[in-house]
Amino acid sequence: MKEFFKVLDIETVLGLVPQFRPVDAEPVDLDAAGGRILAEDVFAAERLPDFARSTVDGYALRAASTFGASESSPALFQVIGAVAMGETARMTVSIGEAVRIATGGMLPPGADSVVMIEHAEAVDDTAIEVIRSVAPGQNLIAAGEDFEAGARIAARGRCLRPQDMGVLAAFGRARIQAFRLPVVGIISTGDELVPIDAVPAPAQVRDVNSYTLAGLVAETGSVSKRFGIIKDDFPSLYSACARALECCDMVLISGGSSVGVRDYTVEAISAFAGSEILVHGIAISPGKPTILARVGRKALWGLPGHVVSAMIVFTRITRPFLRHIGGRCDPYSADVSIPARLSRNVASVQGRTDFIRVRLTRHGAELWAEPVLGKSGLLNTMVHADGIIEIGKNIEGLEEGTSVEVILF
Amino acid sequence: MKEFFKVLDIETVLGLVPQFRPVDAEPVDLDAAGGRILAEDVFAAERLPDFARSTVDGYALRAASTFGASESSPALFQVIGAVAMGETARMTVSIGEAVRIATGGMLPPGADSVVMIEHAEAVDDTAIEVIRSVAPGQNLIAAGEDFEAGARIAARGRCLRPQDMGVLAAFGRARIQAFRLPVVGIISTGDELVPIDAVPAPAQVRDVNSYTLAGLVAETGSVSKRFGIIKDDFPSLYSACARALECCDMVLISGGSSVGVRDYTVEAISAFAGSEILVHGIAISPGKPTILARVGRKALWGLPGHVVSAMIVFTRITRPFLRHIGGRCDPYSADVSIPARLSRNVASVQGRTDFIRVRLTRHGAELWAEPVLGKSGLLNTMVHADGIIEIGKNIEGLEEGTSVEVILF
Repeated sequence: MKEFFKVLDIETVLGLVPQFRPVDAEPVDLDAAGGRILAEDVFAAERLPDFARSTVDGYALRAASTFGASESSPALFQVIGAVAMGETARMTVSIGEAVRIATGGMLPPGADSVVMIEHAEAVDDTAIEVIRSVAPGQNLIAAGEDFEAGARIAARGRCLRPQDMGVLAAFGRARIQAFRLPVVGIISTGDELVPIDAVPAPAQVRDVNSYTLAGLVAETGSVSKRFGIIKDDFPSLYSACARALECCDMVLISGGSSVGVRDYTVEAISAFAGSEILVHGIAISPGKPTILARVGRKALWGLPGHVVSAMIVFTRITRPFLRHIGGRCDPYSADVSIPARLSRNVASVQGRTDFIRVRLTRHGAELWAEPVLGKSGLLNTMVHADGIIEIGKNIEGLEEGTSVEVILF
Repeated sequence: MKEFFKVLDIETVLGLVPQFRPVDAEPVDLDAAGGRILAEDVFAAERLPDFARSTVDGYALRAASTFGASESSPALFQVIGAVAMGETARMTVSIGEAVRIATGGMLPPGADSVVMIEHAEAVDDTAIEVIRSVAPGQNLIAAGEDFEAGARIAARGRCLRPQDMGVLAAFGRARIQAFRLPVVGIISTGDELVPIDAVPAPAQVRDVNSYTLAGLVAETGSVSKRFGIIKDDFPSLYSACARALECCDMVLISGGSSVGVRDYTVEAISAFAGSEILVHGIAISPGKPTILARVGRKALWGLPGHVVSAMIVFTRITRPFLRHIGGRCDPYSADVSIPARLSRNVASVQGRTDFIRVRLTRHGAELWAEPVLGKSGLLNTMVHADGIIEIGKNIEGLEEGTSVEVILF
């Protein structure tokens, strides 16, 4: 049965994200966890630090003993010992006493602050003069000041940044649960395509989309698996989809820009038991002839054949689905966008969302977004562009000087 | 011999980047080239496309025959055949003739444009009526329109984006020369440190910096190699540096915040033949006690021990050096920064460059940068921050509402 066209607007399509399920979790060594998506909430098993630590080289003492100290009227302290790094300080500090301490050292009992070494002058081997007062708590990190015991230190669904790795290290989490990397199958169709290591005959071109899409998949932190160039007919397409669905979490079919190939794609998808065409056409430009289907639990995309269209659809629509499948809790908001001003008028069609490639240029303190014009089959326009702007479906066009958000490539 | 302190401003330190040499190049399969730094200029061996291609499904014909065509006055064409995808079109199109063509097909000789299938109506099997005129060149990509033969399609020193991979694929570059990934050795010092899988005794803490730095190194597209926790003494530090320098392109020593440890670091570096301390202190906050030395051709850094300081120094100072060593032609400008407005007054000290951690919040169309305050030993401040702003050495402070550039983490 041939499905009817379901042309949806972009917001409706993005609303389908929750119809898919994230991949399973797996244990990952912290060493290799950078950029991975955490699959557990991690809580502080103890407070951090577990003891008050000096943040300077100096003398641990009681702040009250320094009150009023100045260069003209220094406060005298007896030095009763030194804190060895990594060892519990045993001596108790009383009024008028000080203990030598280095950055990171554990405050001895009795002390409530640290005077920097620059603000102390040695009188002899066992006495110092302090020339500046300190407040209680000054120049130290109190026990539990970084994290209290029980605090959530890292949240499920977050992409682990270097500082998150530091926090996990601080709490001894040498291994964490992360979502496994989603595997994305890439199928190229088009009887005019040849592999990139072949010399194209007249009328043939090399398979570009497999490589741009593999690059985009890798940037998303997923694994791509190319299934090569598949002939434009139903049996070839069906069997390639079957192979890809078996070992991938998501499948991208690209290259079928002609109506005939789109028909084969729909036919091949529909032949799988439990399949459903969710989207057949999106009210966007470029990228209208995009197909999204669910086969069992997996997402299968028919992306436009023009390379620019395929890249833009992946970036704005496919990628949030892939991030969600990869476990991210912020699949929509993970893109970096930069405010800029439009360098010239741009026309747009009401009723569809338009994406305009732009190059960023700096004029003084301001960034300007300069539209990169050109057909959506031209790779060079993507090489010259820094990102895209989105013109909503209810907007007829944007005037020169308008503030826009540039979504960076 | 103990070197004298060389406190330099940040601009002077960054000016030292060219004193180091990029790593060697190696052949890399295009499949694995995403994010790698290209080590050659790549030129177009032929034009792209090599033939005129249709960008729509429709009919190839001579535009002049459509002039004046409309729904009320269609132009009649005889359909003399169809272009098979990937095959040379043999029939020559004359005035009043049309050839069926699909997206991506090769224009037949004689045709200079394509009418979209939506704008043609079949009269019978061999004739169509065209209801809209086309201009010569419309709905096709001309030979060489994407890239002319001889054009530089990818430049040495650029980080390969998905679209660059597409361009290299289009020209059959299944293998390219890329700079090999720099290897960065990470040494942690501090007698209070224990490995992350150990339970710290009182006064001990786990080694955090090795993991935050490894995460930052990985984000830069380099390989990190941890050398563990090294005792705070000259022989241990010297031998760890020797091991790291042997197999790494750059070495980071972190954790030595106390004056004593910094002395050992300088002593250990100075003990290597041909070593030179280039920087001993930078006029920045946080991060002042940073050391940069050249040992032979390699950069060796003594980073501050406080985790926030180490991360900021890496991000703003070490990373441009690492990018340069990794072959990038834009080591300074590769950071993404976003304009925002400061949410409150921030004080700064003249004569040094201050870095302020900020969290980004959106107020309507505007982004505001809200300072994240807290000691530079507190990891939680980095977890809550989205980036940093830089306050130049000649600025006394910034007022609420000032426009700032937020360098994203």
